[in-house]
Amino acid sequence: MAITQDNILKALAQVMDPDLKKDLVSLNMIKDISIDGNAIYFTVVLTTPACPLKELIKNDCIDAIHKNVGADFQVFPNMTSDVTSTRSTAPLLPNVKNIIAIASGKGGVGKSTVSANLAVSLAQSGAKVGLIDADIFGPSIPTMFNCEHEQPEVKEINGKNVIIPIEQYGIKLISIGFLTPPDNAVVWRGPMASSALKQFLGDTDWGELDYLLIDLPPGTSDIHLTMVQTIPVTGALIVTTPQKVALADAQKAIAMFKQPQINVPILGLVENMAYFTPEELPENKYFIFGEGGGYKLSERYEIPFLGQIPLVQSIRESGDSGYPSAMKNDVSSEAFEEIAKKAARQIAIRNANMAGTTKVEMTN
Amino acid sequence: MAITQDNILKALAQVMDPDLKKDLVSLNMIKDISIDGNAIYFTVVLTTPACPLKELIKNDCIDAIHKNVGADFQVFPNMTSDVTSTRSTAPLLPNVKNIIAIASGKGGVGKSTVSANLAVSLAQSGAKVGLIDADIFGPSIPTMFNCEHEQPEVKEINGKNVIIPIEQYGIKLISIGFLTPPDNAVVWRGPMASSALKQFLGDTDWGELDYLLIDLPPGTSDIHLTMVQTIPVTGALIVTTPQKVALADAQKAIAMFKQPQINVPILGLVENMAYFTPEELPENKYFIFGEGGGYKLSERYEIPFLGQIPLVQSIRESGDSGYPSAMKNDVSSEAFEEIAKKAARQIAIRNANMAGTTKVEMTN
Repeated sequence: MAITQDNILKALAQVMDPDLKKDLVSLNMIKDISIDGNAIYFTVVLTTPACPLKELIKNDCIDAIHKNVGADFQVFPNMTSDVTSTRSTAPLLPNVKNIIAIASGKGGVGKSTVSANLAVSLAQSGAKVGLIDADIFGPSIPTMFNCEHEQPEVKEINGKNVIIPIEQYGIKLISIGFLTPPDNAVVWRGPMASSALKQFLGDTDWGELDYLLIDLPPGTSDIHLTMVQTIPVTGALIVTTPQKVALADAQKAIAMFKQPQINVPILGLVENMAYFTPEELPENKYFIFGEGGGYKLSERYEIPFLGQIPLVQSIRESGDSGYPSAMKNDVSSEAFEEIAKKAARQIAIRNANMAGTTKVEMTN
Repeated sequence: MAITQDNILKALAQVMDPDLKKDLVSLNMIKDISIDGNAIYFTVVLTTPACPLKELIKNDCIDAIHKNVGADFQVFPNMTSDVTSTRSTAPLLPNVKNIIAIASGKGGVGKSTVSANLAVSLAQSGAKVGLIDADIFGPSIPTMFNCEHEQPEVKEINGKNVIIPIEQYGIKLISIGFLTPPDNAVVWRGPMASSALKQFLGDTDWGELDYLLIDLPPGTSDIHLTMVQTIPVTGALIVTTPQKVALADAQKAIAMFKQPQINVPILGLVENMAYFTPEELPENKYFIFGEGGGYKLSERYEIPFLGQIPLVQSIRESGDSGYPSAMKNDVSSEAFEEIAKKAARQIAIRNANMAGTTKVEMTN
C-alpha cells in the first residue's frame, strides 16, 4: 500500500514541541510534504531559527515516521523557521515581529554587551535583527560594533524624513552615538531624550525584522516610560551582576515591568560578570561580585534563568575593539549563543501563550 | 635676648604651603603663639583635616624655628584645620563649606563605592561630612552604609518641614532608598526625580558641614542639570574604569562640567577596578577592564589623577555588607585614604585660587 501525505501527517502529529506543549501538526509547523519512492520530504517550520531544540525535534520527526509509517523510509526533514509574533496588527512597526527590551536597573552590568552579543548570535542563526541603543547619555553600541564614525543617512519616504539604520555584521543599528561627536556630552532633560527614542522607533526605516532589541539606559525613568508608551514591547530581558547593589536595581527594573499599568512580560534573566578565571589558574573561579545572586533573583521572581557569563577579559576587549565575542569561536561565544537560543525560545513560548502586549496609556 | 612672637612669625613666614604656594603666615595659618621658657607653642590651621602634607608642614615649621630662632628650642606645633570655603555667602546651605559632585557618565563604575569611602575617610580625618545619594532610580548608599531600613524624621523648623538626615559612621546621609521600599521601582519622569534632589538640598537639615558629597546617577540629564541650577557646586570628581566604553562616558561627564554655562571645576579623577589580583597569585595583576585608561584620560583633560583602586572582592563585599572598606585597615582602605587626602587637597587648592562657582541660570 502506497503511503500518503495523510499517513505522514498522522505520524508527525505524535511529535510534540516540548516548549509549546502541542504537536507539530496542530501547531501548523509541517509544510511541503512530498514522497519520492522510499524518501519522505517535509519542512518543519520552527518558531525561531535560534531554536535550541532543532536537533531534538528533527530526530523526533524521523523516529515518528520510522515508528508509525515504516522503518525503511529515508526521512529528510527540512528545518526552517518563521519567527512568531504578536505584533502583526500593531500600528507602529507591524513588520517587526518582536520588540525586546534589555534592562538592568543599574548601569555598568553589561546590558550593552549582552544586547550586542544577543544581536550577533540571533543574526548568525539566520534571524533578521535590529538594535536600538536607547542609552542617550552613554551610548556604547557604536564602539561595540566598530562603527563609531558612521553617520546614518536620512531619506524621504512617502513624504516623511526617515533615518536609515547603520548596518554592521548583518544587524541594523541606531544610536545617538551616530548623531553626536564622541567628545560631547548630550546634556538633555528627559523630554529631549525621549524624543530621540521616539525617532528611533517611529522615524527609522527598520523594514522587516524578526527581533528588534532595545538596549535601555540604567534607571526607570523617561526613556523607559516613553518606550512603553510609544510601542507595545513583546518582552523584557533583565541583566544583572551577582553584586547586592546590582541585584537591588535589577529588582527595581523587574518591578517596573510588572507594574499593572506597564505589564511587559519578563522573558529571562542573564547573570553577567559571574566569576573570573585567570588563565594561569583555569580551575579557579573568583566570585569577585558575589556568587549565585542572579539565579536566586530569577527564582524569587519566577523568571527563566538564561545563563551566566563569566568575567572574561576577551569579552571586554571584544566590546572595546568592536567585534562582539559572539562572532568568535570560544568559550564566551558559546555562552552568548546559549543565552540567545534560550531567549529566542522564551520569546516563542511567550508568543504562543500570551496575547500581544498593550501600549501604556499616556498619563505622565 | 628673649624671643618674641614676632621672631616666631618671621621664622614661620619661611615655611611654604607646597600646594597653595604661599607661606603659612601670609596664608593666615598660624595662631595662638606662646612661649614658655625653652618651649614654643603655636597652632597651624590647615585647609583640611585630611591634609596629606600635614607631617611635612609640621616638620618644616620645626626646622624653620630651629634655623631662624634657635636650635635649642623645643617646638610644639598644634596641627588643626579649618576647611576653606568659597560658599559662605551662598543663599542655599551657606554653612556647607564645600559641595562636591561625584560623577562618571557611565553607571556601575563605582561612583557610590568611591563616594561612600571618600565620605568615611574624610570623616575619619575629623571633617564634618554629608552625603546625598542623588541616584533616584538606583540608590546604593543605604546598602553601603548598612542602614537600608532607616527612615529619616521630618521636623518643623521655622515653620518649614525639614528632613533630618540619617547619621551613620559619623556621616549624615540622605537617599531616596530611605523613603521607598527596596522592592519597588521609582518610575518617575525627570521633573519628579529633580524635585527629590531639590528637597535633599533645600529641605534637609544639613547643619554645618565641611564637605557635602553628591553621588550622582549615571548620564548627563535632569539630576545633573537640576543640581547645577539649584546650588553652586564647589567641584566635581570623576570616577571611571579603564574600559573604553566607560572612558567614553567619563569624557561626556567631563564635557558636561566644562560646558561654559555649567563651568564646575573638575578636581580629580579616580580609576576604579584598575586590576584584579587573585590571592593565590599576589604578583599578578589582571587588567580585566584594560590598563591605564584612567590616567591617560586625566592627562588628556589635565585633571589631577587621584589614584587607582584595584578590583578587590573585599571592597565589593564591604559595600554589600554595609561597612565601607575605608573603615578597615587593609590595602583597599589605604587606597581610599590616599584618594580622600588628594581630593581634600585639590578642594583646598581650588578654594585658594578660584572664586566660588556660579549657579547655572535656569534656561531649561
